Amino acid sequence: MTTQQLINQIKKKQSFLCIGLDVDLNKIPQHLLEEEDPIFAFNKAIIDATHQLCVAYKPNTAFYEAYGIKGWQALEKTINYLNDKHPEIYTIADAKRGDIGNTSTMYAKAFFEDLGFDSVTVAPYMGKDSVEPFLTFEDKHTILLALTSNQGAFDFQTKTVDGVELYKQVLKTSKTWKNSENLMYVVGATKAEFLADIRQIIPDSFLLVPGVGAQGGNLQDVCKYGMTDTVGLLINSSRGIIYASQNDDFAQAAAVKAKELQLQMSEILNA
Amino acid sequence: MTTQQLINQIKKKQSFLCIGLDVDLNKIPQHLLEEEDPIFAFNKAIIDATHQLCVAYKPNTAFYEAYGIKGWQALEKTINYLNDKHPEIYTIADAKRGDIGNTSTMYAKAFFEDLGFDSVTVAPYMGKDSVEPFLTFEDKHTILLALTSNQGAFDFQTKTVDGVELYKQVLKTSKTWKNSENLMYVVGATKAEFLADIRQIIPDSFLLVPGVGAQGGNLQDVCKYGMTDTVGLLINSSRGIIYASQNDDFAQAAAVKAKELQLQMSEILNA
Repeated sequence: MTTQQLINQIKKKQSFLCIGLDVDLNKIPQHLLEEEDPIFAFNKAIIDATHQLCVAYKPNTAFYEAYGIKGWQALEKTINYLNDKHPEIYTIADAKRGDIGNTSTMYAKAFFEDLGFDSVTVAPYMGKDSVEPFLTFEDKHTILLALTSNQGAFDFQTKTVDGVELYKQVLKTSKTWKNSENLMYVVGATKAEFLADIRQIIPDSFLLVPGVGAQGGNLQDVCKYGMTDTVGLLINSSRGIIYASQNDDFAQAAAVKAKELQLQMSEILNA
Repeated sequence: MTTQQLINQIKKKQSFLCIGLDVDLNKIPQHLLEEEDPIFAFNKAIIDATHQLCVAYKPNTAFYEAYGIKGWQALEKTINYLNDKHPEIYTIADAKRGDIGNTSTMYAKAFFEDLGFDSVTVAPYMGKDSVEPFLTFEDKHTILLALTSNQGAFDFQTKTVDGVELYKQVLKTSKTWKNSENLMYVVGATKAEFLADIRQIIPDSFLLVPGVGAQGGNLQDVCKYGMTDTVGLLINSSRGIIYASQNDDFAQAAAVKAKELQLQMSEILNA
């Protein structure tokens, strides 16, 4: 998917919501465990109930790998379902991969070609040649970790490197990489006040913003400091939406929570 | 596996060789493609031919994910084969994972519990709470990326942070984390001269050293600067061993290459 197609979808749906499909079998309604593929059954119900309220879905691969082969089958079914039934939806493999060049190429093929995701999250620690293989794929995005939403972000990301914080160094350096127009960045909502500085470095890039809701980030603050003329934001919510209810009404409850966020987003877009 | 069991194995085999099982279907002997599971067939032949010459095997998950479900099945078969037939062998999932706390816990369960690896490689960018969940598992090791073997290591890892290079900051900070005695570190052989400094910070920790062979690192230099009283090194070679021949004799050719390295290691251990 191109960036313009994503922007068009945001305008049409009046939403820049991304829903994180982080399925934990201990947290889903217990009757689903009788299904042949409980993870996919859960995802399908959530997608069916919320796809008009969001523009993107983001399965975190950890939650699928934790269930071995069955988990990967559920991930494949989920991305295939999205690509078949809702091709307008933007898909993010939240995988946080990154390795030396030829190995990163294997990861890029896995997520872009084999699974068919529109984008994948990548860690920057190994530098240019660990990220550039992802950037060579046309109409695919690489979402680089910049400033994450967890407490550990302060261990290294905010430390000063050659006069500027490491996460800013990552932003600046990544702009010099080949095909850097295919980059987006992860910036946690819990650090919304950092967004003004970040926009000085990357005025136009899309940001994937986790941490709204369960992790305590605030939507209004994120938009105040991070929104661009073409929106430039994908706000992720996972647990706050998909586990809104653990009863039979889980999908409707998820839709109610997604609708609340979509309405707030619509107001912001029209302000 | 405990660190002491690993050291005992090194002394017994007179080897601290780790063989990287990075299987690319374009590079393996073509007759294997007729097997039901070509990746596992290749790994099994390599393991059968080399297990007395090395102490560890390290599949890089990228090469398995690139083949989807079949790749994960091959990874499962490979780790099960190692744990069943060669329980004395140390196993490393080269996965370079790392995420916020509850998500890292899912990755740790996937690699330590579901797959049964002895260790997993982890990226440090997200800090303490992204790594500590891995460290809670008893008799399992977390191998943290410090200074990698690729050119991109110079983009961020060697940049100066608060007066010391980022990779040294990673080493120092990680020592303060809970259960840090379960840490090992990745340090590329291509940067052997850095090892003297590294040993000032982590005098006893085991290092996983990629980059000998195909990437140009030198075994003697690594041992000169990095070896401890209890060895403290696992030297990885992937392509240089497993692709020594692309003909029917690939397993014997791999054993010849592994034996060359094992003999050099034996000489160093007895020097």
